[in-house]
Amino acid sequence: MNPTRLNDARSYSLNIPGKRLRPQLLEASARATGNDRAEALAGPSAEAIELIHTYSLIHDDLPAMDDDDLRRGRPTLHVAFDEATAILVGDGLQAKAFELIANDDELSTEQRVRLIARLAKAAGFDGMVGGQGLDIEATNKDLSLDDLKNIHALKTGALITAALVMGGIVGNATDAQLATLETVGEKIGLAFQIIDDVIDVRSDSSTLGKTAGKDAAAGKTTYVALMGVETAQTLAMELYDEALALIADWDSSADSLRALLGKMVKRDR
Amino acid sequence: MNPTRLNDARSYSLNIPGKRLRPQLLEASARATGNDRAEALAGPSAEAIELIHTYSLIHDDLPAMDDDDLRRGRPTLHVAFDEATAILVGDGLQAKAFELIANDDELSTEQRVRLIARLAKAAGFDGMVGGQGLDIEATNKDLSLDDLKNIHALKTGALITAALVMGGIVGNATDAQLATLETVGEKIGLAFQIIDDVIDVRSDSSTLGKTAGKDAAAGKTTYVALMGVETAQTLAMELYDEALALIADWDSSADSLRALLGKMVKRDR
Repeated sequence: MNPTRLNDARSYSLNIPGKRLRPQLLEASARATGNDRAEALAGPSAEAIELIHTYSLIHDDLPAMDDDDLRRGRPTLHVAFDEATAILVGDGLQAKAFELIANDDELSTEQRVRLIARLAKAAGFDGMVGGQGLDIEATNKDLSLDDLKNIHALKTGALITAALVMGGIVGNATDAQLATLETVGEKIGLAFQIIDDVIDVRSDSSTLGKTAGKDAAAGKTTYVALMGVETAQTLAMELYDEALALIADWDSSADSLRALLGKMVKRDR
Repeated sequence: MNPTRLNDARSYSLNIPGKRLRPQLLEASARATGNDRAEALAGPSAEAIELIHTYSLIHDDLPAMDDDDLRRGRPTLHVAFDEATAILVGDGLQAKAFELIANDDELSTEQRVRLIARLAKAAGFDGMVGGQGLDIEATNKDLSLDDLKNIHALKTGALITAALVMGGIVGNATDAQLATLETVGEKIGLAFQIIDDVIDVRSDSSTLGKTAGKDAAAGKTTYVALMGVETAQTLAMELYDEALALIADWDSSADSLRALLGKMVKRDR
């Protein structure tokens, strides 16, 4: 006797083609530390952070949350299966993320506890979950730019920053490198979210792979609403330039990280 | 700007008086290893397992799952707040559980990764979440006794067994002790669930602190339905006796564990 439906739903959620941005960031960051073996060692941690991201999308899409029917061009999990299954799959993926890192015996136990502590903080009340809570409270309210930045720093920024710092931990980065990766994460995370808002007003659903133009309809404040499309776009590019400048003196090991930061702001979906 | 509603909901969920069975088991198991400092060291791990249990109750109570309005004598979290908040608080509590253990620097990093691996497995697809998935699939179906045992071994047994084994890890138990704790957990976990079913048909809601007689109404197979109240009660006591026999030669350090095992089967709520 196996939980067939749960397993099917789990496979469905993991087989939806995604950008895999967070695992790519983690691996590129590990490589950027200059540690030769780091990128190869980063696999399980990269998988773990993608599991956290995937679970958060599943729960965010639920009717009680953002109530989205479409994600990455396919029916969301609760539409393809049912709500109970979607809640459970999300819960299971979160547990699996921490289990993966805890059992990753290519890394030292010291590295593993640091990775887990960082990922858990970024995923929880002081990160993604806290940001989602703020986002819900902020719906249909007038927000300042600082309020909006604070919401997104937690809701999406925390996990992006964690990806970079976790890559550093895998690569045994120095404290100075880790501090730099932290700041790069904050800047590129904010830029990434601003570009999301810009894309949301410019695209249609078929390009986006998810429901377009939803933010305004859902009573959510966006960077575009607060500052206009052009200014928002400019701010995102400034943040990207600042992030690049922080790692300007890193050697060619950081090239894949530089390329990835570029893709995060130069995109149409 | 703080997620006020989320924080209020989190406090509400953590301040509901519960039996705290799993943390008590973990601490008693740590003490039972004979390691003098173990019980004092078990605090964060005990808190972590209670967080996992609490999150699972919050999500199980959701309308899409068991749709329960009453838990531990109070309105469930989605009734007192709303569904989105309840989903998020559950998600955040799960992350917090792993963060607590990862940051517990009174334990070695080796102990921490073992504790996290064990807790994550017990909480996830191979444990609690998998069992809940089976339970949903099994609703309104005829189950054999083996099916029912399998569901409960995962749904409630895995976390109870994890509590005992995690106590052993905190107490630096020998492999033989850990194997014994594992089997004690399997037996007492099954006995605990059988007693739950017995109580469900015997009690009213005010004694129980949650909605009584719900299992039959919800189309769920119970031990009582399969074997009758008296036989179920007898089986639970046999399992308890077997669990006690496994630690019969452990010294007086195991007395609090013995007492707790007794409380798990000799109760009316």
